[in-house]
Amino acid sequence: MGKGHKKWVYLFEEGRADQRRLLGGKGANLAEMTNIGLPVPPGFTISTEACIAYYDAGGKFPEGLEDQVWERMSVVEKKTGKRFGDPSNPLLVSVRSGAMVSMPGMMDTILNLGLNDRTAEGLAALSGDRRFALDCYRRFIQMFGNVVLHLEHHAFDKIITARRKSAGVDYDYELDPANLEAVIAAYSEHIREATGSAFPQDPREQLRMAIQAVFASWNNDRAIVYRTVNKIPHDLGTAVNVQTMVFGNLGPDSATGVLFTRNPATGEPGVYGEYLINAQGEDVVAGIRTPQSVAAMSADMPETRRELERLCETLEKHYLDMQDIEFTVEKGRLFVLQTRSGKRTAAAAVRIGVDMVSEGLIDKEEAVVRFPAGEAEQLLKPTIDWERVKKEKLDPVKIASGLPASPGAALGRVVFTSADAVATVGEETDPKKRPKVILVRPMTNPDDIRGILAAQGVLTSQGGMTCHAAIVARQWGIPTVVGCQALDIDTDRKLMTVEGVTVRAGDLVTLDGSTGSVYLGELPLMEPRITDEFATLLGWADESRRLGVWANADNPGEAARAREYGAEGIGLCRTEHMFLVPERVPVVRRMILADEEAVRRQALDDLMPMQEDDFHGILRTMHGLPVTIRLLDPPLHEFLPHRDHLLVELTELRVARGGKGEGGAGAPGPSAAGGDAELSRKLEATEDLLGRVDQLHEYNPMMGHRGVRVGVTFPEVYEMQARAIFRAAARLVKEGVDARPEVMIPLVGIEGEIAMMRDLVVRVAEETMREFGVTFPYHVGTMIEVPRGALVADEIARHAEFFSFGTNDLTQMTFGFSRDDAEGKFLGSYLERRILRDNPFATLDADGVGRLMEMAILRGRNVREDLKVGICGEHGGDPDSIHFCHRAGLDYVSCSPFRVPTARIAAAQAAIKEERAKKGFKADDRGEK
Amino acid sequence: MGKGHKKWVYLFEEGRADQRRLLGGKGANLAEMTNIGLPVPPGFTISTEACIAYYDAGGKFPEGLEDQVWERMSVVEKKTGKRFGDPSNPLLVSVRSGAMVSMPGMMDTILNLGLNDRTAEGLAALSGDRRFALDCYRRFIQMFGNVVLHLEHHAFDKIITARRKSAGVDYDYELDPANLEAVIAAYSEHIREATGSAFPQDPREQLRMAIQAVFASWNNDRAIVYRTVNKIPHDLGTAVNVQTMVFGNLGPDSATGVLFTRNPATGEPGVYGEYLINAQGEDVVAGIRTPQSVAAMSADMPETRRELERLCETLEKHYLDMQDIEFTVEKGRLFVLQTRSGKRTAAAAVRIGVDMVSEGLIDKEEAVVRFPAGEAEQLLKPTIDWERVKKEKLDPVKIASGLPASPGAALGRVVFTSADAVATVGEETDPKKRPKVILVRPMTNPDDIRGILAAQGVLTSQGGMTCHAAIVARQWGIPTVVGCQALDIDTDRKLMTVEGVTVRAGDLVTLDGSTGSVYLGELPLMEPRITDEFATLLGWADESRRLGVWANADNPGEAARAREYGAEGIGLCRTEHMFLVPERVPVVRRMILADEEAVRRQALDDLMPMQEDDFHGILRTMHGLPVTIRLLDPPLHEFLPHRDHLLVELTELRVARGGKGEGGAGAPGPSAAGGDAELSRKLEATEDLLGRVDQLHEYNPMMGHRGVRVGVTFPEVYEMQARAIFRAAARLVKEGVDARPEVMIPLVGIEGEIAMMRDLVVRVAEETMREFGVTFPYHVGTMIEVPRGALVADEIARHAEFFSFGTNDLTQMTFGFSRDDAEGKFLGSYLERRILRDNPFATLDADGVGRLMEMAILRGRNVREDLKVGICGEHGGDPDSIHFCHRAGLDYVSCSPFRVPTARIAAAQAAIKEERAKKGFKADDRGEK
Repeated sequence: MGKGHKKWVYLFEEGRADQRRLLGGKGANLAEMTNIGLPVPPGFTISTEACIAYYDAGGKFPEGLEDQVWERMSVVEKKTGKRFGDPSNPLLVSVRSGAMVSMPGMMDTILNLGLNDRTAEGLAALSGDRRFALDCYRRFIQMFGNVVLHLEHHAFDKIITARRKSAGVDYDYELDPANLEAVIAAYSEHIREATGSAFPQDPREQLRMAIQAVFASWNNDRAIVYRTVNKIPHDLGTAVNVQTMVFGNLGPDSATGVLFTRNPATGEPGVYGEYLINAQGEDVVAGIRTPQSVAAMSADMPETRRELERLCETLEKHYLDMQDIEFTVEKGRLFVLQTRSGKRTAAAAVRIGVDMVSEGLIDKEEAVVRFPAGEAEQLLKPTIDWERVKKEKLDPVKIASGLPASPGAALGRVVFTSADAVATVGEETDPKKRPKVILVRPMTNPDDIRGILAAQGVLTSQGGMTCHAAIVARQWGIPTVVGCQALDIDTDRKLMTVEGVTVRAGDLVTLDGSTGSVYLGELPLMEPRITDEFATLLGWADESRRLGVWANADNPGEAARAREYGAEGIGLCRTEHMFLVPERVPVVRRMILADEEAVRRQALDDLMPMQEDDFHGILRTMHGLPVTIRLLDPPLHEFLPHRDHLLVELTELRVARGGKGEGGAGAPGPSAAGGDAELSRKLEATEDLLGRVDQLHEYNPMMGHRGVRVGVTFPEVYEMQARAIFRAAARLVKEGVDARPEVMIPLVGIEGEIAMMRDLVVRVAEETMREFGVTFPYHVGTMIEVPRGALVADEIARHAEFFSFGTNDLTQMTFGFSRDDAEGKFLGSYLERRILRDNPFATLDADGVGRLMEMAILRGRNVREDLKVGICGEHGGDPDSIHFCHRAGLDYVSCSPFRVPTARIAAAQAAIKEERAKKGFKADDRGEK
Repeated sequence: MGKGHKKWVYLFEEGRADQRRLLGGKGANLAEMTNIGLPVPPGFTISTEACIAYYDAGGKFPEGLEDQVWERMSVVEKKTGKRFGDPSNPLLVSVRSGAMVSMPGMMDTILNLGLNDRTAEGLAALSGDRRFALDCYRRFIQMFGNVVLHLEHHAFDKIITARRKSAGVDYDYELDPANLEAVIAAYSEHIREATGSAFPQDPREQLRMAIQAVFASWNNDRAIVYRTVNKIPHDLGTAVNVQTMVFGNLGPDSATGVLFTRNPATGEPGVYGEYLINAQGEDVVAGIRTPQSVAAMSADMPETRRELERLCETLEKHYLDMQDIEFTVEKGRLFVLQTRSGKRTAAAAVRIGVDMVSEGLIDKEEAVVRFPAGEAEQLLKPTIDWERVKKEKLDPVKIASGLPASPGAALGRVVFTSADAVATVGEETDPKKRPKVILVRPMTNPDDIRGILAAQGVLTSQGGMTCHAAIVARQWGIPTVVGCQALDIDTDRKLMTVEGVTVRAGDLVTLDGSTGSVYLGELPLMEPRITDEFATLLGWADESRRLGVWANADNPGEAARAREYGAEGIGLCRTEHMFLVPERVPVVRRMILADEEAVRRQALDDLMPMQEDDFHGILRTMHGLPVTIRLLDPPLHEFLPHRDHLLVELTELRVARGGKGEGGAGAPGPSAAGGDAELSRKLEATEDLLGRVDQLHEYNPMMGHRGVRVGVTFPEVYEMQARAIFRAAARLVKEGVDARPEVMIPLVGIEGEIAMMRDLVVRVAEETMREFGVTFPYHVGTMIEVPRGALVADEIARHAEFFSFGTNDLTQMTFGFSRDDAEGKFLGSYLERRILRDNPFATLDADGVGRLMEMAILRGRNVREDLKVGICGEHGGDPDSIHFCHRAGLDYVSCSPFRVPTARIAAAQAAIKEERAKKGFKADDRGEK
């Protein structure tokens, strides 16, 4: 029987973990579990070669296949003591497809294959639950009809719906055996009508048909499209896994449960899980019965408890990770149905990693590599204390859900304008005494910066992950949820409605910026702390990484936090926020609106001492470390009043004047004295201001008069800033502080721009050193953020000692996507349709933007060997992007202070993975694509 | 004397044309002229080696130099029969610097060196004009004082001004000999006071000092900076040219004049020029006496006339080009002072080129290479008929001057709004009967398109060469002047003022879009025609060029014109203009504002037949040639009403409502019946519309929801367009027309975008062919206009059969310059400071944008060998950019129909120059940098 033919069928114990190509991913896993001694329900795998042979033969089983199936089936029968098709003790199996790469569109699972009119009665007798057995049977028929016979769900649904109605019940599980029998009969009848053949009562025929269906599903439309899109070869074929069904509901010595080998919330060692006696998996999920803790299992099933304990050890020793398993006890016999690495919180991931190193299971590098770097930020933020919520039986009312734009939980009273936020919080600086507010806005804009700073959290109804609010909030570590479209915000009336609930200014809300959830009222929060384990893990990361990790910080407070979290420098200190301090705004506007250079110079002279103090503070905080200060970047009109406001004001004034003059054909009558003159004056002033704003107005401000273009046209502005920086440095040198300013010119795309600015900065530095009679180290460099900057990087490097990739703008211009517009209008569509795999503003686009960066680095270092290269866009804190930066040979990444730990870990992971790749070590030798 | 030393001094006849390095540019030219037998006033050149030796010796004349100077001077004395310093017949000379490369900042000319108190009297006697001789003398002292002694102009001016006052005259030439003597005395006194030494009366001392001054000027600050900026070596040194002065005012047998070897206005063969008997060059310029035509010279000076005739032949045979010479007759002896290639009109350039080929002077290729390609466009446009202006003694009143944005002259009545333009012109389509208007606007925007189309010419006070008005006008060949800042336009009152003149709506103006001049009233215009010579020249160009020349055309009229001018296809047919036809606008808005796909589809169904007719017309016109149709490109909000208008309207409505409800705290009283309801309805509708406009509003529309992004998010829009194109093609096939549509997807930067759109277009094409039962050839391609498109061109080429570089957008995004903002705000500064050499929107930026293009071509052809590559941005009609396109290996350029002849010539020039470079032939062997 089957002898002399190629081997098509493998018992689980005959396979190996590395035979993914032959046995598919699932088959190889089952072989692995079986071989390490886990009590996996027995079964066998039909190889992918059989599938290929099936196609080669024009859709026929290759010779020997069927014989080998029955041969292996008899082995399984022996192991289980059951028999396939035997009504007295029926062996039931599941049939699953299993390609090398998991793939949607292929045939789903068929459960309980082997049931027929007679074996169903056998199952009823064994379980003592006829309703259960008949329900299994009717589900099997439906599944078989659907996935093997390709009949639509719809027809089966219609039958059972009609039956529920006639039985007067709401749910399927309320149907009694008689009704289920009627459903089974109707299903069978439908199959006969639709296919012209009866539902196969012969289990062998059922299995043959199921195997064929799996083979056929390899080449269904959806699977072909998926493979084409994902570049998976079409000739791999799929394996078929046939496995014994086991039941946890065959009496008080049966059970079903799930467990983790360690606590997935805290990482504490020890088995952690729940189970239900005499139940099926779906009972646990349904939540009708309350499961018991596995920790307390000894009382009911002491032997199983001990067996599980041993199993956990085996599992961790083999998989070297915390595992999450599903198990079933059938008549006292333990079966493991599935095992996988368990999901865990960030805190648990730290604890487990560090513990496993001290237990000798893994080494430090492995602990670093495994930690989900992106989650590090959560460990620095308050979180909702769900344990307390549970313990205190609180009932959180979730009112909305948006995009998790800046992690951490926040609690406060709702305000609807930045002015209200500032007014409510007042001057109190002690974080414990400060009134806590949540700023709710349809969308934030640069005017809202002070409101965002004052708030505990920010919530908007519009915008995406990288909208203005999100960027600013992430920078300052303020928990934020954006794009919460269900909110209907009425700023005028100071209230918002959401699903019928009205939230007014002053109401309490809690929001979770890590998940995007918004809750009405107060939930308990847990304050963050950097645990010893986390510090240990970060230390290990530092041992491995090659990339430097710097931070973006605009003031001494942020700089101090960045240092605390391990930043080795400031990669981006923006100077525009310094211009937005309220008492400075009039001076800034005077500077911008100046008609003559003299007036502008006077305003700049007034601004200089303020800027000097700003830089003094940051440079002092970062003593001994470089501080990269970017000269003014945004377009000047950002500092002026909003055009819309002026236009509305002007129209109102015009209407007012028009009204007064009504009698006299537009000309004001002689009686219109003082008030009218005042009105005219106001009107004129507003017209004037609007005129100036209009002059400065830009069609595409992103690509307008900003950055170095301001420096070229008004060199006195950059000169003032350079002077303020160097004066601060000179003062610090005299105070004995090691100040290391690096002056960064934004938006450079042309050699002449940086050449001119470098000359200016160097001149000011030399003048200042002479004036103060001191010397200090400094460098002049540039952002690379317009595509041309990258294309002519060789020319630019002649005048720049460092490059810092401003990947936010570089991404915008390389794609031609205005971020603010793309996220609201079409980026969603692009991600949905998989035209883009990732949001390029969150994860660096290696194929496009990355290519430009590599080109810039190559060309730049060609001209200046020791060119220092960093990145200071949002991507500097994104793990995937950090991996790219490592590969591209950057010197450092710079990110918001809260992401510094993330960056330290991601940088280490990149280095370790590279090292391993060199050694030919594959981190994930299970090879999932 | 001087024997045994290196040769420092060369008589003109001792030098050669190729000794630019040794003799400087001017010296080599004088040698060349002398050697071909032109009667150049004799003289000699002191070599650049002498200058270098002078510096090497620390500022001393090298040994032998002075001796050689006097030696050569005596040869010159012999030739002229005059003697240096001899009062009875003084030899006077000019002294000029002459480096290898002409260079501002170096010493200017000194004329009449050799004059002193005694030789001045000699000159007076010879010329019989003492006033003239004394004036020469005082000018010489002033020049010498200024350029040799470095005294300021100012002091000399003060002296002569005081003298004019005391003499009671207005102009220097009114000073009589006595007064001039006084001036000379005062000048000399000033020199003695300022320098401590007297003005040198010894001509030899004068010459020594002048030579030294020329040497010294090589290293003055301005010259050094100029060399640094222009990368000219600092060690070349300058030569010094010493040449006999000749005088045309020594009696009735003397004269002075200028002539061209052919007519510079028409190109007609034959000597063309003017002269004055017994006069100096400045008399011709001063315009006090009317010069006579050289054609009529035979009567006065028959011998000179014949000599000039022979000279012209010699000159053209030697220089192989039309020459412009200055000549002087001194006592019957003819001298040529200067010869250079003569400036000529575009029409003359054509005629001369073609004539010279038939005369055997040059070959066809040379005729093509010489033609200034950029001027071809002028030959297709009306011009101001200056001959008639002169003949009819009209007095043109030029009121302003702006940027020449679109060539050609236009005449019409001023209108200040597009609506007025359209209303005035009405429905008349016969160009002869159409009322002629000039549209005057501060700045145009897309709403003005119909106004521009209706106008004869366009005039704006703002904007640059590539602002909206300029682009649209060039495309349609409408003469346009932009950025005419002197105009103060009051659109409300419908008038403009400029330098005190008020121009009202309805007044006539004439403007010249080739020069940027604006005239009050009517000037005679000359209609263009393609002459036989021009057709010949274009034919020769076609023989040489490799690049195809296509045109951008949006309607059948433009397409026909493009064909007429020689376009070989349509490279860009924009479809957005088709949406702006007034009767379609409501349908388009309905489509855009649709909440549901069904409503949108209905609107699209209404639009389709209109689009189909558009395409039918163009495809028919271009039968047998490809027509590249770009699917909808601009952001949708461009088709909606302007936000400002809505905001003003809304504010007015709100104020109106607020006024009515004043009594009742904002709530309308019960008496406010019908009018109020109407008001509320309007208010609500306006609020709604503003809300929709705001939803579609974009921060950076250039980088927003446009192009393929509209195609991805609303595929039904592109589907409608594709269907309209293919239905038109199918109908044409049935009509026996060879329709060749090429569907172009704009703004592609991601593989998935073009993959999705290609699928859609191919599906529609196949459906349409099936429906009509015909086949037609078609291609699907893409614009490359976002930088990422170029970076991943390999991926994109998998789905695109052609690339067309949209260099307008590509330039914007590569530089990060929004054109509309850059031109008004900082581009001027950049060009002034030479941070940019050219406006990158006019001339393709080869270093940055060009690098991206080359990369795209390489990557694209790597994947698809027969990828067709073109360009359809504004640069497609710019000669320099066309040269780049040729080098980069493009298949074709596409430009506005009026630029097609320019492109044909430029493409040929690029090919010829490449061919010559291969052969080592240098087109300009005079080697000017």
